[in-house]
Amino acid sequence: MQIIGSSVARIDGVSKVCGKAEYVDDIFVRHMLHAKLLRSTIANGRVRRIDTAKAGTLPGVEAVVTFEDVPFHTFPTAGHPYSTDPKHQDVADRHLLTGRVRLWGDEIAAVVAADELTAEKALRLIDVEYEEYSPILNGEDALQENALEIHAGTKNIIKKTGYQLGNLEQAFAEADYILEGDYKTSVVQHCAMENHSAFAYVDATGRIVICSSTQIPHICRRIVGQALGIPWGKVRVIKPAVGGGFGSKQDVVVEPLAAFLSTKVNGRPVKLELSREETFIATRTRHAMNYWLKSGVKKDGTLLARQARIISVNGAYASHGHSIGAKCSGTVRVQYKQKAVECEVTTVYTNMPAAGAMRGYGIPQVIFALECHMEDLARAIGMDPLEFRLKNFHEPGFVDPLNGVKAHTSGLWECVEKGRKLIRWDEQKAANRNQTGPKRRGIGAACFYYGTATWPVGLELAGARIVLNQDGSVQLQVGATEIGQGSDTVFAQMTAEILGIPLDWVHVVSVQDTDITPFDTGSYASRQTYVSGGAVKKAAEEIKAKILERCRLMTDIPIHSLDIADGWVIYKQSRERLKSLESIALDSYYNLAAAAPITADVSYQARTNAFAYGCTFVEVEVDIPTGKVDVLQIYNIHDSGKIINPDLATGQVHGGVSMALGYALYEQMLFDPKSGKPLNNNLLDYKLMTAADTPKIGVAFVETDDPTAPFGNKALGEPPAISAAPAIRNAVLDATGVAINELPLNPQRLFERFKAAGLIEQEECCHV
Amino acid sequence: MQIIGSSVARIDGVSKVCGKAEYVDDIFVRHMLHAKLLRSTIANGRVRRIDTAKAGTLPGVEAVVTFEDVPFHTFPTAGHPYSTDPKHQDVADRHLLTGRVRLWGDEIAAVVAADELTAEKALRLIDVEYEEYSPILNGEDALQENALEIHAGTKNIIKKTGYQLGNLEQAFAEADYILEGDYKTSVVQHCAMENHSAFAYVDATGRIVICSSTQIPHICRRIVGQALGIPWGKVRVIKPAVGGGFGSKQDVVVEPLAAFLSTKVNGRPVKLELSREETFIATRTRHAMNYWLKSGVKKDGTLLARQARIISVNGAYASHGHSIGAKCSGTVRVQYKQKAVECEVTTVYTNMPAAGAMRGYGIPQVIFALECHMEDLARAIGMDPLEFRLKNFHEPGFVDPLNGVKAHTSGLWECVEKGRKLIRWDEQKAANRNQTGPKRRGIGAACFYYGTATWPVGLELAGARIVLNQDGSVQLQVGATEIGQGSDTVFAQMTAEILGIPLDWVHVVSVQDTDITPFDTGSYASRQTYVSGGAVKKAAEEIKAKILERCRLMTDIPIHSLDIADGWVIYKQSRERLKSLESIALDSYYNLAAAAPITADVSYQARTNAFAYGCTFVEVEVDIPTGKVDVLQIYNIHDSGKIINPDLATGQVHGGVSMALGYALYEQMLFDPKSGKPLNNNLLDYKLMTAADTPKIGVAFVETDDPTAPFGNKALGEPPAISAAPAIRNAVLDATGVAINELPLNPQRLFERFKAAGLIEQEECCHV
Repeated sequence: MQIIGSSVARIDGVSKVCGKAEYVDDIFVRHMLHAKLLRSTIANGRVRRIDTAKAGTLPGVEAVVTFEDVPFHTFPTAGHPYSTDPKHQDVADRHLLTGRVRLWGDEIAAVVAADELTAEKALRLIDVEYEEYSPILNGEDALQENALEIHAGTKNIIKKTGYQLGNLEQAFAEADYILEGDYKTSVVQHCAMENHSAFAYVDATGRIVICSSTQIPHICRRIVGQALGIPWGKVRVIKPAVGGGFGSKQDVVVEPLAAFLSTKVNGRPVKLELSREETFIATRTRHAMNYWLKSGVKKDGTLLARQARIISVNGAYASHGHSIGAKCSGTVRVQYKQKAVECEVTTVYTNMPAAGAMRGYGIPQVIFALECHMEDLARAIGMDPLEFRLKNFHEPGFVDPLNGVKAHTSGLWECVEKGRKLIRWDEQKAANRNQTGPKRRGIGAACFYYGTATWPVGLELAGARIVLNQDGSVQLQVGATEIGQGSDTVFAQMTAEILGIPLDWVHVVSVQDTDITPFDTGSYASRQTYVSGGAVKKAAEEIKAKILERCRLMTDIPIHSLDIADGWVIYKQSRERLKSLESIALDSYYNLAAAAPITADVSYQARTNAFAYGCTFVEVEVDIPTGKVDVLQIYNIHDSGKIINPDLATGQVHGGVSMALGYALYEQMLFDPKSGKPLNNNLLDYKLMTAADTPKIGVAFVETDDPTAPFGNKALGEPPAISAAPAIRNAVLDATGVAINELPLNPQRLFERFKAAGLIEQEECCHV
Repeated sequence: MQIIGSSVARIDGVSKVCGKAEYVDDIFVRHMLHAKLLRSTIANGRVRRIDTAKAGTLPGVEAVVTFEDVPFHTFPTAGHPYSTDPKHQDVADRHLLTGRVRLWGDEIAAVVAADELTAEKALRLIDVEYEEYSPILNGEDALQENALEIHAGTKNIIKKTGYQLGNLEQAFAEADYILEGDYKTSVVQHCAMENHSAFAYVDATGRIVICSSTQIPHICRRIVGQALGIPWGKVRVIKPAVGGGFGSKQDVVVEPLAAFLSTKVNGRPVKLELSREETFIATRTRHAMNYWLKSGVKKDGTLLARQARIISVNGAYASHGHSIGAKCSGTVRVQYKQKAVECEVTTVYTNMPAAGAMRGYGIPQVIFALECHMEDLARAIGMDPLEFRLKNFHEPGFVDPLNGVKAHTSGLWECVEKGRKLIRWDEQKAANRNQTGPKRRGIGAACFYYGTATWPVGLELAGARIVLNQDGSVQLQVGATEIGQGSDTVFAQMTAEILGIPLDWVHVVSVQDTDITPFDTGSYASRQTYVSGGAVKKAAEEIKAKILERCRLMTDIPIHSLDIADGWVIYKQSRERLKSLESIALDSYYNLAAAAPITADVSYQARTNAFAYGCTFVEVEVDIPTGKVDVLQIYNIHDSGKIINPDLATGQVHGGVSMALGYALYEQMLFDPKSGKPLNNNLLDYKLMTAADTPKIGVAFVETDDPTAPFGNKALGEPPAISAAPAIRNAVLDATGVAINELPLNPQRLFERFKAAGLIEQEECCHV
């Protein structure tokens, strides 16, 4: 391997740094109209009366559309491949606009106007009269017997899922120690740099063309077809450069409405661009989840039994909720070995923004609960928490009893060993004993496993097309979407490696277009290098075989003696140069007797999965009077299999840990408990990590070689966001003796908990 | 056949009629700069001194580039596929800019500015001093012993080509009658509705992206690579909608310079759009040709011997000249049978705009000469000119002795029979005898054959990619370019026909992009339905086979019992519906056990050719005192094999005949004999046929079924432009007894010839 495993520069780096990359907002279409949405000013209720007459007559307004004007049928928004089995299809609970208000900011009406300002003005001329109900803002209220149904007929339950394995009663009976715990995570938002934005128009053949900042163009195509009730082939989705997604653009949020609104103005282009404030409430969030865990262990640290009850607070629409609940429940079963386990997840509707996919897809929540709980269990039996975890962690060769997925490789033990050394675990633990005073230090750790891609729950299908140019360079088309994570660079590396050509001979077509680029379900589930990489590898191998075959035809040298290096076909043994790729390519294009340009157009289905692993080690200093936590050191150590590009991989970890730090310490969407109105849906009041807040992040990799992956690689996109929060919680516990089981660990919460724990005197409080 | 052979509406019709189709000028790119070219004000000479200092300081000017700043190496511009054999490569005689001026308007320098007006102003600030030579404006002068060489070392000969078959002396000796004749055609221009236009920029990876109104994106890519001396893979060419080409955009004229200029302004986008005046002189024209023909016949009408000397007046740069000369010479050999034939073509440089490909590619010229000459021979031996032609025309089964191309089918006899009836040949001939007075009527005819595509001279390679969508519809990508001729519609028909789906289930990707769409050499040589159609057929058949195979996997019904109709897989025998294409497509995308979207990505090489035939029958009324010719009736009858879309085919004939009428009667580019300055390079002074000038054009087809074609089809794009001019000349001869052997037959020429023939008295002249 020469290019795989080396830190080549991002192929889109210059383009993005110089502002040459084109995002939705950079694309100019003549006569573009602008849509703005009328959002409800209540969180739960019904529109009794809506009057758009005044808005409709404002000069510059082209259309005013209300919930009364949209198709009646419902559609889902979750970015999953379709299933031909109706039982496995996503929950279809959306209309394009709604008169039944389910969250503060629900979409009631839309104005299309010549410019944004006119559209905004028109919105203010629409008169709405509501029938208002009390908002339901947490899981308990949603599940009350008499709770008002947010979606009729659901009892506010999107999905209840669970399993029981082994004899739970007997396993608990064998335990020396039983611990129960409650853990809570908060609602946070992706805060991708680019807000959701799309424009749509109807082309002259009546097809709808959508240009969108999406992770999932092919799924978007399908969902727009469903939402508008038209054949999917009548929809075309184009994805230009995307300024981050983190899962929020794995939902089809703005595209169906933009498309529908275009049909209301004779197919003229209509742009629907959300503001940051709208993106917070009208796209997706990370689920708040409430965990109740009960575990039984032996004195020697053997985990015997575990019960979990999870309420996943999903907000007003189903989105990915059912699937994220299921993914969480799998982790309860698989993260540690136990003789018996029972898990129940209830995903509920509330009157809050809809939660959906977000980096980690439920795993940061369940790992927070599990890794806090494991820390508490270790403390309870007086065992080193690392030893306790490793004793119970599933080993390589482990097979998930429910879905048959096998852990072929695991570098977790080595990851923990690295972390332990980096943080100087034993010395620090000893040094931190018996601290007093306002500032106290502690260290903590947390581990995780993370399945790569979605098999066997979901379809894993990817496509790639490669064309050999006359000069020996190639074009690479993929269906997978570069959204900032570096996938295009990694695919170029794979292609160059297999074909034996320099990296800059690979020209990646970076715009996906459902009319043109191969089918791929999109960017999510850390599946790109694993699944789409499989398609790229397959296509490159096909191209290579065709090049060697043409070389054989030209030279009569048998293929088994040939290889390619540095853009030349060489003799395998002597590595002597035989023919340049250019000469072979020219022959393939211009041979009058037998021309056939060399191309490969493949699809690749991954019917495997691979477990990635990792852990966070952190040292904190807690300022007890102010409740402020300083992260002094933090290391994320990952087994993501073979690392294709170390610098890019390190960047992924930096980004993921930064996101996890915000999750751990600062971020939380707040809602007014009476009205359900969001209180901090902007980047002034919502505390996102900035560069100044972020400590130096240590990164290390333990490279295993997974046999199911194209290059031994496993998930890396999401894992860095998983384990920092419980590691910090465990470090705060180490420093202060106070276990804080609710995120975020912000000063207010710590202050209150330290006060309750007697670490802060009443007088001290008054001084603050 | 249900869709092949039916007159479906153009799939791009609504788009073009409504102004939704995007041409180069409709595409907005931020920060576009505009280039204007400094053109020489002499036709032959050298720039002695050029001073751009003032121009460079004009505010808004970004770059001024002269011939001193461009790469030294030369490049060709002809739109042919590349050849790996240097002997068969096109003549490379261009630089991006030149200090050796070869035509009035030659390109000396360029200004890039923020807007067109500033660029124009800057041009006027450039100071040029010339060394001027006498312009060479005709073939004879170019070939004079002491003529100044326009390109050094060429003796002004681009190519001399010829052959001799049989014993010429002996064949002439057997003849009862020998006739010599001189025939001349004029310089005309394509006058496509859209002038040449392109913009280019350098992308962030350093590749050059060009958006151009071109017939030949892949060839354009190659030539830009050659012109700039960079690997071809570093060039990307995008072809949006094109407003006509007729061969003028089968030359790479503006793209290399636009690309080069972009590299001079840090890769910013530079647009180079020619005005109509520039398009006339700086793109391509139809070659003026001078023919000397000598033929020997027997009394019974048997053609025995023929000699031809052709001078093809090519203008200042080689372009397609060598190839068009060769094509003309083939027609002298193949059009009629003869015992012995000798032909010599000399293609010469002159100080006029470069001639290149234009609808018919030299054949309208040679057919004018041959069909005038045949008429004169028939008159000389007193034989009906139709009988005389058919007696000597090559028959089906004929094989060109020099290149082995075989005429598999010929409908010419039937075409002539149809024409004879439509024009009422015998009655009219009789009625026209012994006319007197100022207005006289005559009828005339001319025949032609036309090879389809360029095999065996040129490479014939085409590509198509088809993708089956989830709803059973398909996307069709072709490398062939829709330039107004209707090829996209015809390809959609072919796809729908083979797949058994409705036409509107075929979504044609109409923009070609060398990074994305399959390789195809482009639109020219009437090759689209024949060659590119072969690729479409092959791709559609592959998709069909894959659909049936998946249906077999789903149902266990063997493929031999299956077919597709109306979007359903049916039982072949009973035609009972078995599975919708939608259900099969959904299975191909979403089958968890075995998903593989159904695609086909093929290339097709045509190593065959097919002879298309046809004839024009015309009735004219000649006003002798004014020299005005009225076309009373005109019929073009074509054997173009199977007609894929009769309405589109009829449209092609209407357009081609209209072009041929202009060629026959009005059009001619004129140059000042002293300075070489063009005198009528605009649509006010150059007489192009308008709707008002165009008579009702009768169209008929004789459908043969060519075995080498995908659907029995043969060339149709160019043939309608071929035979009207000689038919009109023959009709004028029939009416007046005066044979006018030089085009166009405009009033001035006729007046002079009638006067010389004594049809107009001196006194009459004075009255006019």
